[in-house]
Amino acid sequence: MRRTITGYSNPTVKYLRSLRDKKHRKREGKFLAEGLRLLTDALESGRVPEMLVMAEARDPHPLLDALEDAVDAAGGEVIETSPDILSKITGKDNPQSVTGVFAEFDTSLGALNRSAAPIWLVAQALRDPGNLGTMLRTGDALGAGGLILIDDCADPFSVEAVRASMGAVFTQAIARAPWDEFIAWLRQAEGQLVAASLRDAVPYRGAPYSAPCFVLVGNESRGLPEEYEAACDLRVTMPMRGRADSLNAAVAAAVLGYEVLASLES
Amino acid sequence: MRRTITGYSNPTVKYLRSLRDKKHRKREGKFLAEGLRLLTDALESGRVPEMLVMAEARDPHPLLDALEDAVDAAGGEVIETSPDILSKITGKDNPQSVTGVFAEFDTSLGALNRSAAPIWLVAQALRDPGNLGTMLRTGDALGAGGLILIDDCADPFSVEAVRASMGAVFTQAIARAPWDEFIAWLRQAEGQLVAASLRDAVPYRGAPYSAPCFVLVGNESRGLPEEYEAACDLRVTMPMRGRADSLNAAVAAAVLGYEVLASLES
Repeated sequence: MRRTITGYSNPTVKYLRSLRDKKHRKREGKFLAEGLRLLTDALESGRVPEMLVMAEARDPHPLLDALEDAVDAAGGEVIETSPDILSKITGKDNPQSVTGVFAEFDTSLGALNRSAAPIWLVAQALRDPGNLGTMLRTGDALGAGGLILIDDCADPFSVEAVRASMGAVFTQAIARAPWDEFIAWLRQAEGQLVAASLRDAVPYRGAPYSAPCFVLVGNESRGLPEEYEAACDLRVTMPMRGRADSLNAAVAAAVLGYEVLASLES
Repeated sequence: MRRTITGYSNPTVKYLRSLRDKKHRKREGKFLAEGLRLLTDALESGRVPEMLVMAEARDPHPLLDALEDAVDAAGGEVIETSPDILSKITGKDNPQSVTGVFAEFDTSLGALNRSAAPIWLVAQALRDPGNLGTMLRTGDALGAGGLILIDDCADPFSVEAVRASMGAVFTQAIARAPWDEFIAWLRQAEGQLVAASLRDAVPYRGAPYSAPCFVLVGNESRGLPEEYEAACDLRVTMPMRGRADSLNAAVAAAVLGYEVLASLES
């Protein structure tokens, strides 16, 4: 379906703007992905937006044509609007911009197939959507199965997290669960839980990793609760040669994740 | 010296606000570091703010007392103001907040002592201040000597970069230079330049690293220019098991930096 929006007060404009807000995303079960590159990544991962919004006065682009065709074929909506209204929706002064609306994915633990990948990333109380998106991106690079978000984390469907994921939000499975549910699910089958930790930890190089390996990092300022660390199968530590006693959470997950990958493949 | 500021239109308020802007920081040669933790990190690294600004109606805190004493002893200014005016300066609604003004450091290549550390991080055209701060933090953890910023990078003295560095802006040396100057400086003495690259690269695990090792990552979207990669002594690649062909720049620097550290110490 094709539509043109000419007025700022159009309800679709209001709806699109509302999806920048977590509360509205949750209620609608939808999220935004912005930019031609990200939308092309989505398409190549088999994810077609339900709604595609772009400016009337845009340069033609074969990737944009492909997106339009895919949305048409899937019965979605293609909306054209003025550059000004599009700027109002995206908050950006770029008439070349394009935005897609996607249905949120199932984020229950039950939807995960743990034997599908040797590595899974797990974050607890991760607050920064940029860190969350970066972890998704790293997970894609590692060949991880997905990212499991424990307790109260940033929203993986926020515009910032989606952007930082560089398309990995469309390739990595995402699950959300409180700790108790997660640990119960984990112990139902094989799986090694490894924490980046300073307590009672062995050096991360050469530690006995085994697949499927769940790599757990904690909150940006508080780290992991002690009882969560105690429940892990393995606690490992990275060298800290300076003043600081911790790495950025997404960096810690990456350094540890690459060590696990090398260990499992050697 | 002690002062109390009671009016929004006080020139010091305007001055402090102006330091959030790159142009004004450059002109003044000063930068801001915000929050008690960051200021304490600075103090422990021997860096005393020239000016300390805090709210009148604050909770007492021994770390804050230590900061005040240090600023007094160094002949700096301690300024008290209302929570409202402090909020205007910091942009935050937190009357516990505290802000320090520091003189920018020398960022010339000539100020670096390359034999002081086995690893140096180098970033080219890095645009995101959060990534820049995260690289400083990673450098501190690696025991790197510092971060060298090539071509047009984000400002290491921006509030965002300083915050993301978690205090490492005070412990890591920082240099800024165009590529031509950097490569001329590098070749004056011993030093191995290693790029994270996809072109003509060897696996990053087990590559022949040697100290002092300069770990180079490129711009967030464009990567490194081909001629820069060609000028490197070693090009290494990390496994990319998914759709993406790159990692976040700060993540790539960390994964590669930790591999270099392990290699040099083995």
